[in-house]
Amino acid sequence: MASASVRSTEILVRTSGKTSAFDHKLDAILGAAARVMAREGYGQSTIRKVAREADMSLAGLYHYFSSKEELLFLIQFHAFDTILSRLSERLEPVTDPRARLRVMVVNHLEHFLSRMNELKVCASEMETLTGDYHQRVRAHRQRYLKTALGIVESIGETAGTPGVEPWPATLFLFGMLNWIYMWYPAIEGTSAEEIADQVLVLFLHGYLPREG
Amino acid sequence: MASASVRSTEILVRTSGKTSAFDHKLDAILGAAARVMAREGYGQSTIRKVAREADMSLAGLYHYFSSKEELLFLIQFHAFDTILSRLSERLEPVTDPRARLRVMVVNHLEHFLSRMNELKVCASEMETLTGDYHQRVRAHRQRYLKTALGIVESIGETAGTPGVEPWPATLFLFGMLNWIYMWYPAIEGTSAEEIADQVLVLFLHGYLPREG
Repeated sequence: MASASVRSTEILVRTSGKTSAFDHKLDAILGAAARVMAREGYGQSTIRKVAREADMSLAGLYHYFSSKEELLFLIQFHAFDTILSRLSERLEPVTDPRARLRVMVVNHLEHFLSRMNELKVCASEMETLTGDYHQRVRAHRQRYLKTALGIVESIGETAGTPGVEPWPATLFLFGMLNWIYMWYPAIEGTSAEEIADQVLVLFLHGYLPREG
Repeated sequence: MASASVRSTEILVRTSGKTSAFDHKLDAILGAAARVMAREGYGQSTIRKVAREADMSLAGLYHYFSSKEELLFLIQFHAFDTILSRLSERLEPVTDPRARLRVMVVNHLEHFLSRMNELKVCASEMETLTGDYHQRVRAHRQRYLKTALGIVESIGETAGTPGVEPWPATLFLFGMLNWIYMWYPAIEGTSAEEIADQVLVLFLHGYLPREG
């Protein structure tokens, strides 16, 4: 069982962006687990409840992971992994710094607008993982933050001295994007593009210095 | 016991902003409870753990509330109640819309920077309460959002047509302010004023239209 679960984790770690039948099934399991954890909190969640939510047997689930903590790890790692691999694909052909920021914002919103439970589980349980699991999610999250920071910095460079330092500006941007799980239910159906437009007007006008 | 607990709730509801020995003790209990809930999640928290954290007897605690759900209600209600009553006091002498926004941002940050656990419990467990508890916290939260929205709207009015609608702008502002619990530990000690300066540069420049 331990080796089966190492398989999930290793496959996720090695095959960023590629999908297989195994991945599709795992995706459905992680979706069900995120629903349970977002609804009941990590502490109250059990693998039995996840099995019921995913309509699978306990034995079937244990083919994919071996503990509740590994499940939380898979949800968080998978979220950042998917976002990062799509982002690097989408950024590839884009060179203009503002266009790159838009790609990043839309990519982030597109991922989480249809996965509010995952966003909630990433936000609320960020410090729950321990040891190696914690380190690996943290490394991915840092890589993502660094990519975003790089884009924000490059916008500042092309436009003169910005009014806010790139680092807090980047954190404020993620605040605007992620706090959405508190109010998105009220505007469900609004597209990632539409929300991105509003975020980017506020962010870009705010971040860039005023001429004159 | 039920009547003792009704007392906490009623005192909180009736005496916004005023403090007494009872309130000070209750404040300490709510602080201990928020620490336990932020650390272990609401589901895993027990009144026994809160008693240990507050260094009080179980019987002593039950003088203040009668259930774990009432405790969560008291944490959330007390947070919004304190913020709202201080805000209305502080806004009283201020008429300039931008100065009013600054008062609101500093008031919000001052409250939560020293109470990160409360912020986490408000953010993660917003949908946990049920029935009357849920309604009362919701009503307070709506009152707060409406106050903030009113300030943001009045800034738009004095400055011409803003680039972002007041409602999403207000929600983005709260995103910037509240997401801080994810990264404040890394910059602990930074004052509410300093963070407010950065938030306000980004928000005001972003929200207000560019001249020319």
